Amino acid sequence: MPDLQRYFVPAENWHDNEVVITDEDAHHISRVMRAKSGDEIICNHPDGQAAVTEITTMTSDHVYAVIKEWLEGSAESPIAITIAQGLPKSDKFEFVLQKGTELGAAAFIPVQSDRTIVTWDHKKMEKKMKRFKKIVKEASEQSHRNKIPSIQPVTEINQLAEESNGFDLKLLAYEEEAKTDVYQSFGMVIRRLNPDDRVLIVIGPEGGFSGQEADILKQNDFVPVRLGPRILRTETAALYALASVSYQFEELG
Amino acid sequence: MPDLQRYFVPAENWHDNEVVITDEDAHHISRVMRAKSGDEIICNHPDGQAAVTEITTMTSDHVYAVIKEWLEGSAESPIAITIAQGLPKSDKFEFVLQKGTELGAAAFIPVQSDRTIVTWDHKKMEKKMKRFKKIVKEASEQSHRNKIPSIQPVTEINQLAEESNGFDLKLLAYEEEAKTDVYQSFGMVIRRLNPDDRVLIVIGPEGGFSGQEADILKQNDFVPVRLGPRILRTETAALYALASVSYQFEELG
Repeated sequence: MPDLQRYFVPAENWHDNEVVITDEDAHHISRVMRAKSGDEIICNHPDGQAAVTEITTMTSDHVYAVIKEWLEGSAESPIAITIAQGLPKSDKFEFVLQKGTELGAAAFIPVQSDRTIVTWDHKKMEKKMKRFKKIVKEASEQSHRNKIPSIQPVTEINQLAEESNGFDLKLLAYEEEAKTDVYQSFGMVIRRLNPDDRVLIVIGPEGGFSGQEADILKQNDFVPVRLGPRILRTETAALYALASVSYQFEELG
Repeated sequence: MPDLQRYFVPAENWHDNEVVITDEDAHHISRVMRAKSGDEIICNHPDGQAAVTEITTMTSDHVYAVIKEWLEGSAESPIAITIAQGLPKSDKFEFVLQKGTELGAAAFIPVQSDRTIVTWDHKKMEKKMKRFKKIVKEASEQSHRNKIPSIQPVTEINQLAEESNGFDLKLLAYEEEAKTDVYQSFGMVIRRLNPDDRVLIVIGPEGGFSGQEADILKQNDFVPVRLGPRILRTETAALYALASVSYQFEELG
């Protein structure tokens, strides 16, 4: 596969054999990459397919390209992992979004919990979400993914528990588990998964979940696991989980 | 194990039944933690052992504590992994040090290579190294490790190849490997390791290794591997490798 620049293009911009790239991506192609007619780029369709395309025309804010070849193969994980992350500071959440996207996450849910120290200003939420979406889009392009992970609105524990029914496996990365000698082995739980399974992993905020929150999750079939024997910072836990699942299903095979 | 604050104490400060804590750590205990006589702290000996101790006396810059109980168990990885990291910008290297320590690395080697974009000012090296050491010490304490990873001086590829003989396995995380369909499976290589094996993992800088550098490493028995099917940023690659080895040997067991 040629090492071409990748762009995610919304479904409505695909017409028969032509793709139209607009807005910031069009600007990136013409001004940053300084592309010209005849140059090739890879366009990703939201359904996960990708095609090598050739640029035909560029206007000030549109780039038109024709599909030359649909690409086979995918860099998507066989296991769809949703990371429900207890709200850390904004920059740490952005870190989880960027690295988590590289490591194959399917979706992210910021979780408001009892011990969340930070509060995200509701008025700034729209702007913040726009920035978050930009981070996962760029990380998806950079890591050659076929799909952009979704980011859900800030969710509370009760709501998370209610909405968790659709998942095949629900895990609670519980710091307390790492300190005891008796715990659920993360490896054993992960190894039992099958391709196309959907997994929800909940990770506590900096201060950890309260006992009450942990109880709500456990009552809703969240399995407490430890992520290795060392105490991980909240923003490192998601990466441990994602790298491990990738190792198990994409490298051990 | 009680969730007490941990401090790494140099070997010369352990006397029979007493431990003496000095400098910044003494300051941390008295001023930040506001500890008093009778309070307990965990002291880590450089040999990897740790003990619960009770504070007896505090002066302006010394804290004296008696050993109450040696702790069993260890949060150290059974596989000693050295991360040889192609020099990224300073803040990214600091990120690798902090997260890599949490994830169990035994040592770090900053590697100067052909495509290294950044140069680290030799005059500032001493100050920089002091800062690096502080980061790994604090991350070791925070993650409840028994040992502080070492940080070696900046090393060039030829020198790294020469000094790599003591390792049981040498890996080259080679971005090009992730793009092809035929590659060495990281899982298969890792699975064959035995406890106490020493592994050296070399990770290219932002621009990747030059072909010549990759050749030097391959001639010196470095095995090229891919770390999952997605293209990882240089600072994410070390974390993928460390989390995977932890998963294999500390969670799959």
